[in-house]
Amino acid sequence: MEYQQKTRPGARPAPAPADTLVWGKNPVTELLRSGRPVDTVYLADSLPEAAAGYYTALARQAGAVVKKVPAHKLQKLCGGAEHQGVAARGAEIEYASLDDLLAVAREKGEPPFLVLCDGIEDPHNLGAILRSALLCGAHGVVIPRRGGVGVTGTVMKASAGAAARIPVARVANLAQAIRDLKAQNVFVYCADMGGAPLDKTDLSGAVALVMGSEGKGPGALVKKLCDGVVSLEMAARGTGVDSYNVSVAAGILMYDIMRRRAR
Amino acid sequence: MEYQQKTRPGARPAPAPADTLVWGKNPVTELLRSGRPVDTVYLADSLPEAAAGYYTALARQAGAVVKKVPAHKLQKLCGGAEHQGVAARGAEIEYASLDDLLAVAREKGEPPFLVLCDGIEDPHNLGAILRSALLCGAHGVVIPRRGGVGVTGTVMKASAGAAARIPVARVANLAQAIRDLKAQNVFVYCADMGGAPLDKTDLSGAVALVMGSEGKGPGALVKKLCDGVVSLEMAARGTGVDSYNVSVAAGILMYDIMRRRAR
Repeated sequence: MEYQQKTRPGARPAPAPADTLVWGKNPVTELLRSGRPVDTVYLADSLPEAAAGYYTALARQAGAVVKKVPAHKLQKLCGGAEHQGVAARGAEIEYASLDDLLAVAREKGEPPFLVLCDGIEDPHNLGAILRSALLCGAHGVVIPRRGGVGVTGTVMKASAGAAARIPVARVANLAQAIRDLKAQNVFVYCADMGGAPLDKTDLSGAVALVMGSEGKGPGALVKKLCDGVVSLEMAARGTGVDSYNVSVAAGILMYDIMRRRAR
Repeated sequence: MEYQQKTRPGARPAPAPADTLVWGKNPVTELLRSGRPVDTVYLADSLPEAAAGYYTALARQAGAVVKKVPAHKLQKLCGGAEHQGVAARGAEIEYASLDDLLAVAREKGEPPFLVLCDGIEDPHNLGAILRSALLCGAHGVVIPRRGGVGVTGTVMKASAGAAARIPVARVANLAQAIRDLKAQNVFVYCADMGGAPLDKTDLSGAVALVMGSEGKGPGALVKKLCDGVVSLEMAARGTGVDSYNVSVAAGILMYDIMRRRAR
């Protein structure tokens, strides 16, 4: 049976098709208490401390990230509306857990094949990665709760709908996720410069592929925790362009993993 | 010697780093007579016929596309400024010709390796394709004059600068370009569904790869003219997502071509 997020037992109502931003004290309180997935809660710096504490507590319960912003920025975000110092953005999809992703592999009787995004910032890139991950038969994608884009409406669109078809886990700590995967005998490979060439790297078996962010690549700790580093070949060197677009690199690597599994 | 557009003998001054839009009768006339590359000339529907004919003639000489637009749209494009019914957008880069691209391959003593984009519309995708083309050792990229995005500032940015490093030919007729390539013994492959699997396709030797647009894929005539159709494998079928992002697909195919050439 194919894994579908929307029909998972106990799943909450299907997510809205686009980002939903609400503002004002009552609407935000309602949203946070509704049990629906919430991505981010914005608190204006003008909000009294007691109120800020109240919304922070509610946000934590709902698993949302809290961001403090200048009041004028919040006003702009809300299209000039009276925000009363607080706004919240509904999450695009319902995120899975790392265990959910591994369960998908188990149900299919396949060695796990996961993709970890270490702070991808461009929604076009995350969307394209989700699309390739689905098509290449990955069991899920892991993104960090902080740093990097979540599965927003733009990501959903860029993924051609794949974001609703492949489970995405949003984890508090990507390094811990890597440790957990290694403890379960998943080989974790980081894509970066200076690693072993893809041709000479065995990506068969239980594997997780870590893709770094557009500007900085994978974080130092994340890279250190990985079992190996894999690099893509380049015919042209010294051009000032020293890496592929991250979604292209991820696609090349995932395609390679898929082909190995088919053999 | 590596091919660099900026230092090509007889090259005009280095292109501006971002789109340049000018408006008003005198500025547009000056730009069109300057010999600098011009992408598009916008004519308001309110412009008298004689003036429209004048700018159309100048635009043709300059190799620019003419677009007729409602006056209020032109006003919006110009940020509300008084446009006098005419505006023009400077081209991002100086485009090469198809022969220029083949000359690059000859100079390097390599069989030609070109990528033809049949109407790519998303600048992120064209940028990523240019980036992969440069890194995979392609000799150039061909885009059509009409239909699809040109090498704009957004494309330049998305290409991480590759757009200024790899020659791009903008041709009036992509079908004719395919005929010309075939006449020069370049094998032209179209990437699309229903073709031969990549694993069973020999992309070595003189090769041109045609990538279709995001929504519609390659055009019917273009596809018919190609020597063969190549398809990427997918592990997951029936998910509603039936193709890779075009820049990812192009990257997987170009990477494969590069690896074959290295063997």
